[in-house]
Amino acid sequence: MTATLKYRCGIDAHAHMVPHDFPSYLGASVPADWPSMAPAQACHRSVMIAGKNYRTVSDRCWDTAGRIADMPEMGLDLQAISPMPELLSYWMAASDAQPLLRYLNEQIAAMVAESGGHLLGLGAVPLQDVDMAIRELEYCVRTLGFSGVEVGSNINGRPIGAPEFDPFLEACESLGAAVFVHAIRPAGMERLIGPPPLQQVLGYPSDVGLAAASVLTTNLMQRRPGLRIAFSHGGGTLGLLLPRLQQSWGVFPALKECITAAPREQARKLFFDTLVFDASTLRHLVAQFGETQLLIGTDYPFNFHDRRPVESIDAAGFDEATRELLLQGNARRFLGLPLEENT
Amino acid sequence: MTATLKYRCGIDAHAHMVPHDFPSYLGASVPADWPSMAPAQACHRSVMIAGKNYRTVSDRCWDTAGRIADMPEMGLDLQAISPMPELLSYWMAASDAQPLLRYLNEQIAAMVAESGGHLLGLGAVPLQDVDMAIRELEYCVRTLGFSGVEVGSNINGRPIGAPEFDPFLEACESLGAAVFVHAIRPAGMERLIGPPPLQQVLGYPSDVGLAAASVLTTNLMQRRPGLRIAFSHGGGTLGLLLPRLQQSWGVFPALKECITAAPREQARKLFFDTLVFDASTLRHLVAQFGETQLLIGTDYPFNFHDRRPVESIDAAGFDEATRELLLQGNARRFLGLPLEENT
Repeated sequence: MTATLKYRCGIDAHAHMVPHDFPSYLGASVPADWPSMAPAQACHRSVMIAGKNYRTVSDRCWDTAGRIADMPEMGLDLQAISPMPELLSYWMAASDAQPLLRYLNEQIAAMVAESGGHLLGLGAVPLQDVDMAIRELEYCVRTLGFSGVEVGSNINGRPIGAPEFDPFLEACESLGAAVFVHAIRPAGMERLIGPPPLQQVLGYPSDVGLAAASVLTTNLMQRRPGLRIAFSHGGGTLGLLLPRLQQSWGVFPALKECITAAPREQARKLFFDTLVFDASTLRHLVAQFGETQLLIGTDYPFNFHDRRPVESIDAAGFDEATRELLLQGNARRFLGLPLEENT
Repeated sequence: MTATLKYRCGIDAHAHMVPHDFPSYLGASVPADWPSMAPAQACHRSVMIAGKNYRTVSDRCWDTAGRIADMPEMGLDLQAISPMPELLSYWMAASDAQPLLRYLNEQIAAMVAESGGHLLGLGAVPLQDVDMAIRELEYCVRTLGFSGVEVGSNINGRPIGAPEFDPFLEACESLGAAVFVHAIRPAGMERLIGPPPLQQVLGYPSDVGLAAASVLTTNLMQRRPGLRIAFSHGGGTLGLLLPRLQQSWGVFPALKECITAAPREQARKLFFDTLVFDASTLRHLVAQFGETQLLIGTDYPFNFHDRRPVESIDAAGFDEATRELLLQGNARRFLGLPLEENT
């Protein structure tokens, strides 16, 4: 961190990048979902996936100077950047996804390098192949110096708490890598009646809520007490699932048997971002998860992002100590930063 | 209502019945899911569906006197009873389901008749055939004198807000029938890692949340302003989806175009039960939906029910006026009862 840090500025753990270009596929047969870029309106480009415009994004996705210029007005001084989740490419053969994710990781590293200490990296790994994902994790942490990785709420339909991902999460714990779980290709799409943005709006928080529940029902934090793991969108729906899960734990013997510590206690070992757009919700999340577990998330620079994350926290009326934790303290613990600024 | 009503007692709008026996199937080929009863331990019987024990339930499911005897200790004086949701049988041919649901409705009517004014009926209708469902609705309301009906959060995967159900909901509005939406066969089961009760614990609130969202994205209360509709389990996850839906409505033109009034305002025209097992959650729901929209729900007499629903409300520390609304006033509006007791 640099001496320009201003005390009281926030740290944003949920912000995304998209590169200016994607590499060409070098194999024999291009995967259907291999992304490419198409021109769009001024300062924008369109990410093309499977022949369709997946999303038109602004140059803030790749323009480090522009991104840093936006941070003071948002009340931020440090931002952890991770790929746009759809780029995680779990649905490709791992051997195809790996070079694409390596490219993203190198691009993230370049942005961090030119940021003057204002950006940190959360890399991408091909979790459809756990061994390959561990090797990419090691590259991200040891070679690129990343704080950790972004992973999906589910990997091809299997929630992140599923047992097959445990060796990967064990490696994250052992390397001290932060794990940021972001909603992706959500369950329940058949329940949505309306235009495509409902996937992000309703599907994402539902999926990340179930993903967070999956790490409670599989006792992840009991098994990996040193792991630092955060969930996007305030943990999605977990803040309303948790009281019912807690109550059920005392009622159903099958749940008491499989869940080895109170769900409420386990939930208080997970991190969650503040991307909920509502003061009452923030208060509810602090009541559920504790004031030590929430950290700023904005979804910057996508169109649907929290433009005033510090004001969002201030609107909840927390005491000063809680406010400081949400602005910086909790993000520092999650990201493995020194708890005090080096000012 | 009888003169035995005690002011300050609550009205429970979410309680279930199961009959002591099921009728034999009278057609040529028994549907796979046609239920039957098998003996179980003392005071219990097992509902057998598709050759498996779906659930072992207590005699409180059919024993009206025992049910009424339990109510004072729960702080209740009036209870609306609806079938155990799995009996709604949407997955059968409508012509098979209809006689089964008719039998359930007659059983509910018999329990109401012998309850001395302590029970009200919410009937079952074969919503896999909207015309047939309207006819059964009319029978429930006009012949059996029910307050309304119970419907699933989805009908064979289609959420209750889907346009094909609009003629049925129009009939409910026009007949003044209350609609109680209960979670059923939820989406997202592939995201759950753990024993079968997780379906009820995590799947149910997720599905009812998406169902409630579907009536917001399709503007149900704008189209049917006289409809009275309530959602089980505190509306499930809706209380965390709503702020994000509200925010997105101001960001995505496609959502602004399809949703004709602010989601937050529309949500404040729906009813929700208090079955959330948590004081912070109750406060959050009142903040989201308004103090006029929550009513007691217990899931009595199933094993996982709120045994002290009035104490659950008292734990949230509401002012006296809000408490009265949650105990009785809102349920009276939802169920179409006089707003004052006839004591």
